[in-house]
Amino acid sequence: MTFLADLLSTVFERRYRWPSLEEDDDRPIEALTAELVSATGEVSGQSLARRILDRYDQMDDTTKWTFFRHLALDMTISPEAVRAALKGYEEGQTKASYRAFVAAAEPPRQELIRRLNQVPGATAALVRMRADLLRLGTEDDALQALDMDFRHLFASWFNRGFLVLRPINWESPAHILEKIIAYEAVHAIDSWDDLRRRLHPVDRRCFAFFHPAMPDEPLIFVEIALTRGVPDSIQALLTEDRTPLAPKDANTAVFYSISNCQKGLANTSFGNSLIKQVAADLKVEMPGLKTLVTLSPIPGLVRWLRGEGIEYDPGDKDLMRQLAALYLLKAKHDAGGPLDPVARFHLGNGAEVHKVHAGADISERGLAQAGGAMVNYLYNLSNVAQNHERFAAAREIAASSDVRSLCASAEKRMVRSLAVG
Amino acid sequence: MTFLADLLSTVFERRYRWPSLEEDDDRPIEALTAELVSATGEVSGQSLARRILDRYDQMDDTTKWTFFRHLALDMTISPEAVRAALKGYEEGQTKASYRAFVAAAEPPRQELIRRLNQVPGATAALVRMRADLLRLGTEDDALQALDMDFRHLFASWFNRGFLVLRPINWESPAHILEKIIAYEAVHAIDSWDDLRRRLHPVDRRCFAFFHPAMPDEPLIFVEIALTRGVPDSIQALLTEDRTPLAPKDANTAVFYSISNCQKGLANTSFGNSLIKQVAADLKVEMPGLKTLVTLSPIPGLVRWLRGEGIEYDPGDKDLMRQLAALYLLKAKHDAGGPLDPVARFHLGNGAEVHKVHAGADISERGLAQAGGAMVNYLYNLSNVAQNHERFAAAREIAASSDVRSLCASAEKRMVRSLAVG
Amino acid sequence: MTFLADLLSTVFERRYRWPSLEEDDDRPIEALTAELVSATGEVSGQSLARRILDRYDQMDDTTKWTFFRHLALDMTISPEAVRAALKGYEEGQTKASYRAFVAAAEPPRQELIRRLNQVPGATAALVRMRADLLRLGTEDDALQALDMDFRHLFASWFNRGFLVLRPINWESPAHILEKIIAYEAVHAIDSWDDLRRRLHPVDRRCFAFFHPAMPDEPLIFVEIALTRGVPDSIQALLTEDRTPLAPKDANTAVFYSISNCQKGLANTSFGNSLIKQVAADLKVEMPGLKTLVTLSPIPGLVRWLRGEGIEYDPGDKDLMRQLAALYLLKAKHDAGGPLDPVARFHLGNGAEVHKVHAGADISERGLAQAGGAMVNYLYNLSNVAQNHERFAAAREIAASSDVRSLCASAEKRMVRSLAVG
Amino acid sequence: MTFLADLLSTVFERRYRWPSLEEDDDRPIEALTAELVSATGEVSGQSLARRILDRYDQMDDTTKWTFFRHLALDMTISPEAVRAALKGYEEGQTKASYRAFVAAAEPPRQELIRRLNQVPGATAALVRMRADLLRLGTEDDALQALDMDFRHLFASWFNRGFLVLRPINWESPAHILEKIIAYEAVHAIDSWDDLRRRLHPVDRRCFAFFHPAMPDEPLIFVEIALTRGVPDSIQALLTEDRTPLAPKDANTAVFYSISNCQKGLANTSFGNSLIKQVAADLKVEMPGLKTLVTLSPIPGLVRWLRGEGIEYDPGDKDLMRQLAALYLLKAKHDAGGPLDPVARFHLGNGAEVHKVHAGADISERGLAQAGGAMVNYLYNLSNVAQNHERFAAAREIAASSDVRSLCASAEKRMVRSLAVG
Repeated sequence: MTFLADLLSTVFERRYRWPSLEEDDDRPIEALTAELVSATGEVSGQSLARRILDRYDQMDDTTKWTFFRHLALDMTISPEAVRAALKGYEEGQTKASYRAFVAAAEPPRQELIRRLNQVPGATAALVRMRADLLRLGTEDDALQALDMDFRHLFASWFNRGFLVLRPINWESPAHILEKIIAYEAVHAIDSWDDLRRRLHPVDRRCFAFFHPAMPDEPLIFVEIALTRGVPDSIQALLTEDRTPLAPKDANTAVFYSISNCQKGLANTSFGNSLIKQVAADLKVEMPGLKTLVTLSPIPGLVRWLRGEGIEYDPGDKDLMRQLAALYLLKAKHDAGGPLDPVARFHLGNGAEVHKVHAGADISERGLAQAGGAMVNYLYNLSNVAQNHERFAAAREIAASSDVRSLCASAEKRMVRSLAVG
Repeated sequence: MTFLADLLSTVFERRYRWPSLEEDDDRPIEALTAELVSATGEVSGQSLARRILDRYDQMDDTTKWTFFRHLALDMTISPEAVRAALKGYEEGQTKASYRAFVAAAEPPRQELIRRLNQVPGATAALVRMRADLLRLGTEDDALQALDMDFRHLFASWFNRGFLVLRPINWESPAHILEKIIAYEAVHAIDSWDDLRRRLHPVDRRCFAFFHPAMPDEPLIFVEIALTRGVPDSIQALLTEDRTPLAPKDANTAVFYSISNCQKGLANTSFGNSLIKQVAADLKVEMPGLKTLVTLSPIPGLVRWLRGEGIEYDPGDKDLMRQLAALYLLKAKHDAGGPLDPVARFHLGNGAEVHKVHAGADISERGLAQAGGAMVNYLYNLSNVAQNHERFAAAREIAASSDVRSLCASAEKRMVRSLAVG
Repeated sequence: MTFLADLLSTVFERRYRWPSLEEDDDRPIEALTAELVSATGEVSGQSLARRILDRYDQMDDTTKWTFFRHLALDMTISPEAVRAALKGYEEGQTKASYRAFVAAAEPPRQELIRRLNQVPGATAALVRMRADLLRLGTEDDALQALDMDFRHLFASWFNRGFLVLRPINWESPAHILEKIIAYEAVHAIDSWDDLRRRLHPVDRRCFAFFHPAMPDEPLIFVEIALTRGVPDSIQALLTEDRTPLAPKDANTAVFYSISNCQKGLANTSFGNSLIKQVAADLKVEMPGLKTLVTLSPIPGLVRWLRGEGIEYDPGDKDLMRQLAALYLLKAKHDAGGPLDPVARFHLGNGAEVHKVHAGADISERGLAQAGGAMVNYLYNLSNVAQNHERFAAAREIAASSDVRSLCASAEKRMVRSLAVG
Repeated sequence: MTFLADLLSTVFERRYRWPSLEEDDDRPIEALTAELVSATGEVSGQSLARRILDRYDQMDDTTKWTFFRHLALDMTISPEAVRAALKGYEEGQTKASYRAFVAAAEPPRQELIRRLNQVPGATAALVRMRADLLRLGTEDDALQALDMDFRHLFASWFNRGFLVLRPINWESPAHILEKIIAYEAVHAIDSWDDLRRRLHPVDRRCFAFFHPAMPDEPLIFVEIALTRGVPDSIQALLTEDRTPLAPKDANTAVFYSISNCQKGLANTSFGNSLIKQVAADLKVEMPGLKTLVTLSPIPGLVRWLRGEGIEYDPGDKDLMRQLAALYLLKAKHDAGGPLDPVARFHLGNGAEVHKVHAGADISERGLAQAGGAMVNYLYNLSNVAQNHERFAAAREIAASSDVRSLCASAEKRMVRSLAVG
């Protein structure tokens, strides 16, 4: 452990030692990328890679767009070459013919990105580069194809086996904590005092995934409250003047906020792994924990109700709970899954809709998005795999009988209201 | 640095916590691999991955061979599917059509290997798996094609940007040091006392590359002696009763041994990066260092001399030096490069043939392979890129005038001897 | 290094593992202290020590005072015993007679405090205990004598050789940083943003001394600005909108704030060591640094001017500089040293009065205490020992000719004003 | 934890940075020690301290002896001064009078030693210095008195609260492991392979105490075997070809070797703390552990038997067990405690004599010292305090009924043999 720890410190130290690039190189960037993917690039690649990344760093959006187009159009596959290699492969499936196929089927920009990644700090730079690409490339087929190559490489680089789960607490470095403040996407953290309240009390936990090559950047983090019983309100959960619960008295771990940190890692889903790993770790630490639930927003509820022309009243708690249950169980996406994105995430992980609450998030956003309603998704580790399979295969949504019956009441009410109307 | 260090410790700690797999699963391994690459595998994949790796661990060579054949034949690309996807892509180069092509062109076994890598310790297990594959698959085209996929993934995973350079010294952990003893491939380390003599004196250094996911396994390491002047004998360099040189008095760093540690990482070359990184680090630490050279074996010399019918006499030092120079500069591989593998490595890195020595390695192996001759390759950092390019482009070998003139003498001698003979 | 690092982690981890004391022990505290210093205490001392420290933690000031009186009166030396042992020692200076003298001359409370220190966290608890003692014991001879024993032990425990110098920066743990905010005694830190401005820019440094047994508590810290030239205003130095200076361009390190953190470590001076160690480290890191100065407050200036009936005008910069020079060079303490406590500290360390500035600290406190004046003390490492000796021997104050001449002008002005008046 | 770890690394790093002392200082060492304890020494003390320690390092034994005599005679207390200060204190017990007494009662050499300790590495140097003193001072009253001052300071410096317990295992640094080999005092470790067998198997543990200022030097260590049932032979315990026991199947922890490492820390007993701390840690790690015993040598058995004229026969196991029980329970030291030093140590810690075994250590030393007999001391944590107290108060030895009855048989046999004889 120690040695490993020490081992990694090098990456960081090096940052300060790296000699700056002395002479300028005013060749166009296309010349640099061509050289980097060439045979020469294999040996003298590091300074070339730094030069390209430095150059990129100073580009404005238009220049970046041009650079992406260069990668997309000039460094892509050649269908003829693929076809020829494929033919060779079919004629004789040998090492050589397969190697030729693999070489033809992989666009040169993939090797370019791998070689850019030689430089300390490059991994984070490439993640930011992809964030730019996602932003600038929405309307452009070639750039979207280029993005597939980033995704492909990131799937290898950010493989679960390379991620490291770390607790985030009040003893974590300030430069990491300021990122937690910045990246919290669900319930905003207002100040360092607010952060302290999230991290420091004995009944609070926070965990993040990191990648060894980006030690200063959390990839995703989850905030947890330890409670007795399943909570029904985020205000109560986060209130400033609570008395912290001794961990040994807790029976429930509430995952009340999960935030992705890196736009450039979109579509590389870590959430499922994070939840399961943290759940497993907490159970080892606190054998008394019996229940793992979320306290989640229902971001699409109001929009859907309005779209459907269904009237709602945040003050009518029974009504709100019925409508929330109805929405979560019945509102469907075109592709067949649940309309609500948070529901899709947790149900896809094998959780079930456990309880719905009204008046549970009376922040401005909570009222605007869901009329104050929230939901607990339950992670019952013995059902998770089965739930996941049914959901994956048949879009079947696991829900408690309580929630089912609320949904049924809502449906009856709709029928009645139609009848009346 | 600290945080990073701490961050990584998790991987290791987890090893001890992992619950053992309880129930047995007696499905055939083909069923497990199929499930792991399926949609379900995305969520419940970790236990499946462990099961496959555990199962693999207990296979004998025959069963491994069958398993590899399964990966090679059942989880490969479908040329028809590739062709169809390629056609779609040519008809309209969109995100969807490119995605379809990428999916078709990547054999399912690549995704399988990525998913196997989710488990702690999996990276090392997969490196060992490839070592088995290289051993068992020499005669089998399909297995050699499968190997291309391992290489492809390892090129991403062991990207230079993810490697960590660490000093190895007498304060390193014993379980790492015993691997240094085991892996030293050039000048065997006989005992812990011998190891101490290699690592502990103030004029000795050793550095290794590690990967964060394999913290207990060096990937490659280099042993260095600090000297005044370029050494001409490995015996003198390693003699037990020398007085260590104070580092401030050293003007030369001698890379006298470079050893790859992982058979499963064959063809993933780290040596060039290692030498350059270490050279840069040493220059920062000791500004007085002026010269970076190797003291290298010439493993193919005797075999070549015999093949050519050239007589040699280890006792005739002038002759041996001439013959060594001749061999290094003139003996060619079919592909056009130098015949000697060590020469290929260093010249490919941009080094030059600096000096040749007779009676420099009088160990049994040194006499058998090279009649006691050795060579210094010089890394002159200001010429390295240029040397490399000329070597890559035109197989031009950089050599000192001294070595060139020895080679010329040898050629004259040959001519004379032909004339005489 | 790694192993050492790891080695220390134990102290901390243990904190969480310590089983709580089960059964209550309602004996009076005097019984517990008696048992702890007895032979039994040697073996079963840890739980006893915890019990006493826990008990102490819950005492109010009155009970603490009583507890201190118990230590002061019941666990002190016996003059008769000392005299008898001394007599024995004079009669025959042997191991046994000296041992008997040492035992008699050391009050039992010293052994008590050493045995209390067995428990994890005890060192910090004992430092807090002494802070209480200093607060409650001001009027009480016996308690002040007791304090001498704390000082005696702390002089051994906090020996320079056991202290560890650490950089404090934006990557330091938040729980340490919040203490920096709390303990900054010279120029208050208003917020985390303010802290970030003190620590994060490339031209700022901060260092603290720690003790291994109190890893969460800085003992003393110094804040440093890197500048070109000697600064003449704290406002300019700390202004929010400056452009940070590249360290390689800095020629001056300004120690602009030194804060002691632990009231319980009063009279255990770390400041001198801290400044010298940091100065040595900075010179190694940045060979371009030529000048090490402070930018220090003159806290007693206004009070002294008023006491002396000397008129001053913060708006008259020439006047203020003359008066500041006069005060620093001429105003004396009863014991003969400089009246100003900050001057005493730096001159005692061997620094010299280098420059005085008017309008240099226009904060409320700066104006109230010194009419806005500040001073640079210069640490010229080649003169420090000599300055120190002259100051220690003859109270001779080292000062630049500039400051001397300002002082002379002030004296002339005084004479004139007397003549006029 | 991380921060703490990092915090400590400084000490170590500094070692390499320390500038060497440039100018020579040829004053006699008495002048240097006088200056170091003077006022000046407070400020410029570090270089002075290094000079003295460097000078000491090059002394031969005669010069060391002279140096110690200087400390012992020139830097000791003045009885007149103590008496005067004591008188002042009795006349008025104030801060000032107590301070004067404390100053007079402490010999200047104590302050000297504290000031020597300012330099990195000084703590270890002072421990070695005391080892010299113990070796050279055996016959000299003044030097033995001087040793009391070392002991006094070391009792503060090596206070239990400052010690750190660390596991020693196969991942520990080689430079620590080579010290374990060197210091093992009970059952010699022959080679690195032998060491590996002691540390690496899953049923073996080793722990050591370290001091933060001597991170490269274990102070004391204990070797442990995990077993099922109490072992009766050291050969069986350490045999090379055993199958390691899974820790979850172990019910007994056997402390089979405890070794002090530092001669200079004689009389500073860590063993009791070490055993209790390790016992507590193991119980947390392995709740299945029920029994904590030693497997200890009986070093004085044969000498005592011979002294008493009692015949013994290593081949007669019943006899040997009876004689061992007799010796352990009845053979007394002049001071009243058990004659056997190992028995004194464990019984003093509160252990009990649990079982005796014949043929248990058939090594040359085991046969010579104890005719092959060994003993288990049992640490029953619920009795330890009570056993300790009875032993401390009344020299009462706790023993199992089994051992008592063996002892009774031995006594009967003695009577019979007397009767017969």
